Amino acid sequence: MKKVAVILAGCGVYDGSEINEAVLTLLHIAKNGASYQCFAPDIAQHHTINHLTGEETTDNRNVLVEAARIARGEVKAITELDVTQFDALIVPGGFGAAKNLSDFAIKGPQASINADVLHACKAFANTNKAAGYMCIAPNLIPFIYQQAHLTIGNDSDTANALNTLGAQHVTCTVDDIVVDQQYKLVTTPAYMLAQSILDADAGIAKLVSEVLALS
Amino acid sequence: MKKVAVILAGCGVYDGSEINEAVLTLLHIAKNGASYQCFAPDIAQHHTINHLTGEETTDNRNVLVEAARIARGEVKAITELDVTQFDALIVPGGFGAAKNLSDFAIKGPQASINADVLHACKAFANTNKAAGYMCIAPNLIPFIYQQAHLTIGNDSDTANALNTLGAQHVTCTVDDIVVDQQYKLVTTPAYMLAQSILDADAGIAKLVSEVLALS
Repeated sequence: MKKVAVILAGCGVYDGSEINEAVLTLLHIAKNGASYQCFAPDIAQHHTINHLTGEETTDNRNVLVEAARIARGEVKAITELDVTQFDALIVPGGFGAAKNLSDFAIKGPQASINADVLHACKAFANTNKAAGYMCIAPNLIPFIYQQAHLTIGNDSDTANALNTLGAQHVTCTVDDIVVDQQYKLVTTPAYMLAQSILDADAGIAKLVSEVLALS
Repeated sequence: MKKVAVILAGCGVYDGSEINEAVLTLLHIAKNGASYQCFAPDIAQHHTINHLTGEETTDNRNVLVEAARIARGEVKAITELDVTQFDALIVPGGFGAAKNLSDFAIKGPQASINADVLHACKAFANTNKAAGYMCIAPNLIPFIYQQAHLTIGNDSDTANALNTLGAQHVTCTVDDIVVDQQYKLVTTPAYMLAQSILDADAGIAKLVSEVLALS
């Protein structure tokens, strides 16, 4: 049975992992006959957003602790991720992937990536193991792979920022994927473009299948 | 297009709605060609649980605000639920359904239900509109329907407590549903029994299809 590491970034689209994307990722991994283990950095969230009003709150929340809500407690600190135990990596989106895993949401083309996230993701790249990044999570890719082909959908400002950081953005529809064969790297727009949970499901199903096919 | 009201109880299995159950509910509603609107009571959570350690924290969180994480902000206060606008009701599980929507997790056979939740759920019962309750959410049913056939799986203590409150518990496997035809009421064990997301998905898919077939 193939085993997939899933990196989460909290719990909620505006300050953590996008919940639908995370659950659909886990669902499709299981539907493909593979297993998964979730990981997250044990760090403070960049901030906490009231998802009803969109306003910032005074809460101090921890990325690993909140990610445990999605994982039903079954989540480990990202520093425990041993690449030799896994066949592939998948990173769901949500703003947490650009606020907690990196600071791309704040700094754009001047962004940097969390060191432990970089170490974990680089381990998959260095061993040429397949990886999938969805929604805004491909913002991490320029720190991990040089000039990889990737997509975040069709937003030109975001695409240009990624190209500046060192990627080759490819426009993509919500129900499709972009595959960089050299790197065994798969991306899909998910909620960068999705208008419904069915839209998100279509692209995520393809991404998970392709990542497992490449692994 | 049929429209389903979904009542959430927060965000996370130990103090809110079980996230996989909630997302799979929304997914299957959409896959069946129906639409949904999420609702939650605008009340303080009974308590907040650190989902990594299982311990209670000092956080004061609001059920509606946390439910907005699952619903991507698209959630309304349960007092706004107008039954005439919906064809059916579905309530996912998680401890929040027995800590926030009622106090069944604390008081068992002496439990009571939140008044606004009762009002909303009763409106579907009174108009003979179909409803589905999964996991521990059937704890609400004795307050809404008299002597309904329902399941929470096979836990005899929980089943006996529900029978004492006024239900007729039926043992059920995780991949199946119990249907009370008189009340157009569907229940499934979900994470009361599920060992994996595929287990939960099987029962939830059946529940959603049956609720829509009855509506």
